[in-house]
Amino acid sequence: MYFFELIKKRYSVRGFKNTAVEPEKLELVMEAARLAPSAVNFQPWKFFVITDKKILNELSKTYSREWFKTAPTCIVACGDHQTSWKRSDGKDHCDIDVAIAVEHIMLAATELGLGTCWVCNFDAKMCAEILNLPKELEPVAMIPIGYSDTDVVEKKRKPIDEIVEYI
Amino acid sequence: MYFFELIKKRYSVRGFKNTAVEPEKLELVMEAARLAPSAVNFQPWKFFVITDKKILNELSKTYSREWFKTAPTCIVACGDHQTSWKRSDGKDHCDIDVAIAVEHIMLAATELGLGTCWVCNFDAKMCAEILNLPKELEPVAMIPIGYSDTDVVEKKRKPIDEIVEYI
Repeated sequence: MYFFELIKKRYSVRGFKNTAVEPEKLELVMEAARLAPSAVNFQPWKFFVITDKKILNELSKTYSREWFKTAPTCIVACGDHQTSWKRSDGKDHCDIDVAIAVEHIMLAATELGLGTCWVCNFDAKMCAEILNLPKELEPVAMIPIGYSDTDVVEKKRKPIDEIVEYI
Repeated sequence: MYFFELIKKRYSVRGFKNTAVEPEKLELVMEAARLAPSAVNFQPWKFFVITDKKILNELSKTYSREWFKTAPTCIVACGDHQTSWKRSDGKDHCDIDVAIAVEHIMLAATELGLGTCWVCNFDAKMCAEILNLPKELEPVAMIPIGYSDTDVVEKKRKPIDEIVEYI
């Protein structure tokens, strides 16, 4: 759909129907992540798409919200600090690149009628242990994904004049 | 347009026509940034939309590429470390949030027939001095924006099996 319609339609879904996500939809969503731009095109990311009930249950311990347990699938988006681009002043672009790819995931999911929520306030260390991640991979965000079972959340944003200055 | 078409269509534009961007298009693009999600909805960002030739010329000193000088407009996206959300383990989500908003800008521009390029490899300190930014604002990316005068760049990406694991 029209991009401006799409970004208005996306909202944080915190409750899912007891319905699995079609594998072909998950594949499309992950293809959207794959096509995301990144600094120097280094693509310093790895995504775990989890539908295994046992692992999902383990992951729910890293983020203690009842609604999180309703998600039939959870994507764990990781940044790879070994391959991420660092600027000459030392700034690591890992978070930036992973965030771009994750937003592609969220918007692709919205386009396909799926709901998602950015989860940042989770125990990243415990998450890394559960997935047995190598040291260079940092879980940056968890994205529960499925069919929404909640009402649309109205967006509250700062007025444009507060965030944009024309020069 | 369909989201999967949109992300395929976006590419790094490194050369612009000598044509100004319509103010109403810039406004739409910035509205797309405004609607972006952020951790705890803190919206820790500020955007400078620069068309002033003198300032654009100054900014070109922070990123010495001839093509950059052809852009009729440049958006400087800044993160506000004073208002950004920090997780209990100290992780600052400033970069993540700004990156989401910037990707909204890039995709909105693509939808409107405009070209953009993520510029990360610039002198952020010099940029902050030129714009006389308060200490808490960090320029995270510069986004030259205008009508493309270059050929489409073909995307080269890692194969999906290298970046996605289904569990």
